[in-house]
Amino acid sequence: MNPLLKEIRHNPLLWLLAFVPVLFAAEKLKPESPTLLFVLSVLAIVPLAALLSHATESVAAKTGDAVGGLLNATLGNLTELVIALTALSAGQYMLVKASIAGAIVTNTLFVLGASFLLGGLKYHVQEFNRVSARVQAVLLFLATIALLIPSAISQADSATATAFAQKLSVGLSILLIVAYGLSMLFSLKTHRELFASAESGEEGEAPWPIALALATLAGVTVLVALVSEVFVESVQKAAEAFGMTPAFVGFIVVALVGGAAEMGSAFSGARKNRLDLSVGIALGSASQIALFVAPVLVLLSYVIGPAPMSLQFWPGAVVMILIATMTTALVTNSGRSAWFVGVLLLMVYLIFAMTLYLLPPRVQ
Amino acid sequence: MNPLLKEIRHNPLLWLLAFVPVLFAAEKLKPESPTLLFVLSVLAIVPLAALLSHATESVAAKTGDAVGGLLNATLGNLTELVIALTALSAGQYMLVKASIAGAIVTNTLFVLGASFLLGGLKYHVQEFNRVSARVQAVLLFLATIALLIPSAISQADSATATAFAQKLSVGLSILLIVAYGLSMLFSLKTHRELFASAESGEEGEAPWPIALALATLAGVTVLVALVSEVFVESVQKAAEAFGMTPAFVGFIVVALVGGAAEMGSAFSGARKNRLDLSVGIALGSASQIALFVAPVLVLLSYVIGPAPMSLQFWPGAVVMILIATMTTALVTNSGRSAWFVGVLLLMVYLIFAMTLYLLPPRVQ
Amino acid sequence: MNPLLKEIRHNPLLWLLAFVPVLFAAEKLKPESPTLLFVLSVLAIVPLAALLSHATESVAAKTGDAVGGLLNATLGNLTELVIALTALSAGQYMLVKASIAGAIVTNTLFVLGASFLLGGLKYHVQEFNRVSARVQAVLLFLATIALLIPSAISQADSATATAFAQKLSVGLSILLIVAYGLSMLFSLKTHRELFASAESGEEGEAPWPIALALATLAGVTVLVALVSEVFVESVQKAAEAFGMTPAFVGFIVVALVGGAAEMGSAFSGARKNRLDLSVGIALGSASQIALFVAPVLVLLSYVIGPAPMSLQFWPGAVVMILIATMTTALVTNSGRSAWFVGVLLLMVYLIFAMTLYLLPPRVQ
Repeated sequence: MNPLLKEIRHNPLLWLLAFVPVLFAAEKLKPESPTLLFVLSVLAIVPLAALLSHATESVAAKTGDAVGGLLNATLGNLTELVIALTALSAGQYMLVKASIAGAIVTNTLFVLGASFLLGGLKYHVQEFNRVSARVQAVLLFLATIALLIPSAISQADSATATAFAQKLSVGLSILLIVAYGLSMLFSLKTHRELFASAESGEEGEAPWPIALALATLAGVTVLVALVSEVFVESVQKAAEAFGMTPAFVGFIVVALVGGAAEMGSAFSGARKNRLDLSVGIALGSASQIALFVAPVLVLLSYVIGPAPMSLQFWPGAVVMILIATMTTALVTNSGRSAWFVGVLLLMVYLIFAMTLYLLPPRVQ
Repeated sequence: MNPLLKEIRHNPLLWLLAFVPVLFAAEKLKPESPTLLFVLSVLAIVPLAALLSHATESVAAKTGDAVGGLLNATLGNLTELVIALTALSAGQYMLVKASIAGAIVTNTLFVLGASFLLGGLKYHVQEFNRVSARVQAVLLFLATIALLIPSAISQADSATATAFAQKLSVGLSILLIVAYGLSMLFSLKTHRELFASAESGEEGEAPWPIALALATLAGVTVLVALVSEVFVESVQKAAEAFGMTPAFVGFIVVALVGGAAEMGSAFSGARKNRLDLSVGIALGSASQIALFVAPVLVLLSYVIGPAPMSLQFWPGAVVMILIATMTTALVTNSGRSAWFVGVLLLMVYLIFAMTLYLLPPRVQ
Repeated sequence: MNPLLKEIRHNPLLWLLAFVPVLFAAEKLKPESPTLLFVLSVLAIVPLAALLSHATESVAAKTGDAVGGLLNATLGNLTELVIALTALSAGQYMLVKASIAGAIVTNTLFVLGASFLLGGLKYHVQEFNRVSARVQAVLLFLATIALLIPSAISQADSATATAFAQKLSVGLSILLIVAYGLSMLFSLKTHRELFASAESGEEGEAPWPIALALATLAGVTVLVALVSEVFVESVQKAAEAFGMTPAFVGFIVVALVGGAAEMGSAFSGARKNRLDLSVGIALGSASQIALFVAPVLVLLSYVIGPAPMSLQFWPGAVVMILIATMTTALVTNSGRSAWFVGVLLLMVYLIFAMTLYLLPPRVQ
């Protein structure tokens, strides 16, 4: 039997795939109802992201350790990347930046917090590998610091000459991508023993045959791109209809939708008392956004965007990212967790969401 | 013999109670000398706070562990709360906010620093329970972060629409009180073993009979309220006479006066090489101000205040609270202390005091 | 044979001493070519700083442990101090402040990062004494916090009345020098076992005779002062010619030139797997700038400067110093390092340098 169909039959999340054709039909029949299209596109992206994640893992399993790890790490945030690319080519830079900031904050506060809470409700105190958590938290801290320096410094100086921000962003992006390459060398080659094996998320499941995996990877990426286009087009008007600010949509909705698949792995890891897996997913994903996705988007804005995009974030996002990263460093430092630590992380996340929801929509 | 009189005879601090009637007499006879009334009210509050603390502990000792712990934790900052409520009903919101910020900073820098210094002068290196100190430092960090988010974000955006700040403050206050309730569940019920037994401050002393304790609690609270009224009325003019800014008075004077009783316990714990007690008092008290006292004051401002009060702090206070909390997290992280660490904490506190003293009085 | 000549013969770095007379000749013959004078003065300072460092160590070795340690610690940044004093008496306060900020950032990011990278290329994982690194990181964090409080608070309040900043800076400077004295008492007397013996940098080398060492110390200090004068005079115009901002010159060039000698010791320590030495040099040097050099410069500005200098830094410098110190505290906390941690520290340093290089020159 086709492993793809078998997977779909066993995984109720994938039944949401039915919304993909529904969305395309609705787009033809009801192009004038953005809220409907928005809701349908959200429902359609979630299962596609799950498929993408499974296909990536199958390809990675076949290609051997080093290349597979690289593939897994690089394509791990493919959904976020495709959504951001669609928004980029539509010139919606506010949405792109909000989704970068939101992905970092969501991974460090929501994914980590919910993992700690879900695990803590089952186990009294959970321990995880302090050494690897620390290394990853330090990497994440430095990666986000690097990402934020232009915003922090030029906002502080209010010398926000656009030309300066542009030049700095390009230089910085190149530097970040070099650092990303070196971090791959570090975590996959020279010091792989320090990193929790976050790949073996769904052990027990046989990987798909390589041909099927590659075909799925290609086909689903195209589908995600098509759905993202509807999503990005409809999001602005839908947000207005729901009374949401664009900052809220990018920061909260896009990040939650794009990261749904990984979240599942992180949460199930926590319930199995394998917090190393959860911490690895949350911190690794956030690092990857900062070191790889963000600079790639800046460089691609020169090719596919209507204008160059800078790495200048609005001040509130800078504050949120810094708080999220510092919190993570502090919390993972002890190598232990309990349910209330999860509650507090989620509370900080909730306060961010509340602030963004209530914020008057004239930010940036 | 009456345990109250016995306590008064043995504790020289309580001899200051003589200033309570002196104050009320002076208020009748010399209503026009605010500096005299200010000094007398400070001298009268200190012994009342000590009595209140002892009465609370006696009630707590009688009512059993869980309820007693809850009472102790909730009434531990009763003096600060009564002073703040008096200022609130008088509409002195600047003083209220300064005293919230000041209580957090005083506990984390002054109480902790003086404990480290006093203990370190007697013992070469003091060790304390790292695990419990870390848990408490993480709670404190997240609690103050939650408290500060609205100030940090909206000041950064300079989109300080009052309506936004008001709505956000109410939502946030409810969230903080829920978190406070959960933190009680965590520290008194599910994970009590992680917290140092900060209650047993004056072991060896027999608790008072419950009737006496309750009567003292009620009577002294009324006295504190009456004295606070004189204090709040006179503080503005007395501050001018002494050349002090309102920020300095709220931040330094109110916090030191209101917390005098707890400081005594913390310092004597440090001298007995029981630093866990000192760290527990300092961090617990600061957390309670952030998670419980501050949101209660916001919500009560709708009932007893002339206008709603927001959680918008002036920028300098935000910086000071953040520095104080980060410093505490860093310093308690190692589980060891020596006298010079205390010196440095006190130096940061002294610099804050100096800055506030010299600051031109037009802040907020 | 004269140990000074022997030293010069064996140490190729000292061959740069030839540039000292060349510089003085060039100053007479070509007073109108600032870029030439600038390059020559940089080349002349480096070997002088190395000689100064060696002479200081020889004097320290002769005078016994406590006095020697004090001498070593106080004169360790003599080159930076002399350069800053020359800039101070020339009224170039921007350059003075940039060099203070730059010395802290360079020590914590560049020296530490390069040490970690150089050591990590040779050893898989390097361990260092966590306890002593933590104590030093906490000291450094609190020292820089103390230094930055006036900038952080008054900039946040935009109540930057010059009189306020001036008064606060003097009070603060006295406090910092007292803290420095106490830190000497702590690290050299009461708790010397906590500090890595950073003095024994070049073990195996016999110290010079005391007369030679003292004469070298005196003579070379005068030479450094003379060379600094040329350096400070030429730097402004040379910077313009090279397209560098004054902030970049002070922050990067002065700090690298002034610290060249110590850097050599730190790097060679890392290559010998003696990371404690490297960490001690980097953190100790940064602490000393914050607690001693900066306040001495403020107080001396009343004597030798054209006008009083405050401790008010420009906002970008505050952000950079804070990030550098927090990063150091985080990175040294684990007591372990690997090459990629060094890469990330250097990346943050490189980003600072890039930002300052590109920044429009109208900061402060």
